[in-house]
Amino acid sequence: MSNNSLRTVYVNGDYLPENEAHVSVFDRGFLFADGVYEVTTVLDGRLVDFESHMARLHRSLGEIGMSLAMAESELLAIHRELVQRNGVDQGLVYLQVTRGAADRDFVYPATGTPATLVLFTQQKALLEAPAARDGLRVVSLPDLRWNRRDIKTVQLLYPSMAKMEAKRRGADDAWLVEEGQVTEGSSSNAWLLDHDDTLVTRALSHSILPGITRSAVMAFAEEQGMRVEERGFTIEEAQAARAAFVTSATSFVTPVVEIDGQPIGDGRPLPAMSRLRERFIEESRRRAI
Amino acid sequence: MSNNSLRTVYVNGDYLPENEAHVSVFDRGFLFADGVYEVTTVLDGRLVDFESHMARLHRSLGEIGMSLAMAESELLAIHRELVQRNGVDQGLVYLQVTRGAADRDFVYPATGTPATLVLFTQQKALLEAPAARDGLRVVSLPDLRWNRRDIKTVQLLYPSMAKMEAKRRGADDAWLVEEGQVTEGSSSNAWLLDHDDTLVTRALSHSILPGITRSAVMAFAEEQGMRVEERGFTIEEAQAARAAFVTSATSFVTPVVEIDGQPIGDGRPLPAMSRLRERFIEESRRRAI
Repeated sequence: MSNNSLRTVYVNGDYLPENEAHVSVFDRGFLFADGVYEVTTVLDGRLVDFESHMARLHRSLGEIGMSLAMAESELLAIHRELVQRNGVDQGLVYLQVTRGAADRDFVYPATGTPATLVLFTQQKALLEAPAARDGLRVVSLPDLRWNRRDIKTVQLLYPSMAKMEAKRRGADDAWLVEEGQVTEGSSSNAWLLDHDDTLVTRALSHSILPGITRSAVMAFAEEQGMRVEERGFTIEEAQAARAAFVTSATSFVTPVVEIDGQPIGDGRPLPAMSRLRERFIEESRRRAI
Repeated sequence: MSNNSLRTVYVNGDYLPENEAHVSVFDRGFLFADGVYEVTTVLDGRLVDFESHMARLHRSLGEIGMSLAMAESELLAIHRELVQRNGVDQGLVYLQVTRGAADRDFVYPATGTPATLVLFTQQKALLEAPAARDGLRVVSLPDLRWNRRDIKTVQLLYPSMAKMEAKRRGADDAWLVEEGQVTEGSSSNAWLLDHDDTLVTRALSHSILPGITRSAVMAFAEEQGMRVEERGFTIEEAQAARAAFVTSATSFVTPVVEIDGQPIGDGRPLPAMSRLRERFIEESRRRAI
């Protein structure tokens, strides 16, 4: 856990020191990966895109036949309480909902079994991340995940394995490839900027997560007069692009400077992309609540 | 949990009442489905195929870059202690190992982070299961799981969803289909008996779990002079077969009498298959330890 003083964690109505924050071994999140999650970015102690994250949470829950009987105002209050108690200036709030605890059975628990709700925070220097300045080196790996990646479940073993394989190869992260095209990064959406100055990212489907930041960057870029095209692309296309980058809640817009050992452009972040990142972050700060 | 008196559960060295058996919310089993498991059948208070389950456990751990620093004799002692304390005559011992608890990060925890080890029991009337007498009705569903199903991870949301969808359609379970061929049941290996009296089940690959009972039934059937062929088959082939069945640790050999509304043969368990089940169970009892 943290090396600092103990964080406060929210578990099913209680605010607990992190070393007392437990769930039952019979929790379906632990036994079946039967749960979904969201990560909301904190800037200046405020929440970025909170409503969008909660909308996606409810979509994920609906897709796996779950629901959470808690008003959005109450979820907002818990987020804010944790940010305040843990003194988070920059970082994130992690929220996970599972189908609750019941004796192990592939059949869902009886109706009325309470869902498990866990939230915790992480303090992170998001704005000063070295990758924003230096860019990421990524390697391509086959996308072996299940076929409903649009649901934000905790079935994250493969993305974690892919990240470790990337590190083992001396890179920072992985881009996953299926049927010849990039799906996503291990925990981000993948983009390129083509030689017509069009931003390109894969269209939504069951193959990728509908990224909140993907959508926010798309809207922001269009407001700024940039062209955005939603279509698949290959590793070779990305290697030959003007620029490549990833988007995610906690990385905003982060340049990719190398793919499978091949530098993108001159191997340094494109100034235009760094400006997009800065302007997008300003905009994120403005709309944080 | 159980309606009876509280079971004893093993968690990281402690024997605890089930309502006090917890793991950290930071456990990677809970946050990343970063764990593997085994289910060992108990008959007459003894363990069936224990060594094979432990061998597969270590294979699963190795495939995801984990290890468990515990001798097999110690794991056996924990299994036996739980069976004895919980008075399990028939049922199972469930064992799960995860990569342990650490602040949430796709990167694996620091070397030396202790794995989490959890074991619990379930008392179940395995031998008198109604499905053994009446057979199972299954429906076919697309196999949307990840592509390393040979590793017995806790990423079980889709099998659980498939089981629920089967129930919703009035059936007992699902058979999963990929590229036109049956992979597995939601938690079992799938078989047919063809009109040449050959037992047929899909060959091992990354697409299916290497079932301990699959392997034991295969060896047992060959000892009994039956032919066994490892090859893929379609739903239509299974519907037209002499018999269809599933194997798993806790269901042994269980007939399938209907697939997608189509009865197999006369829609009743084939006596020859019921005899195979009985003889296989006798053999399992004999080799239990």
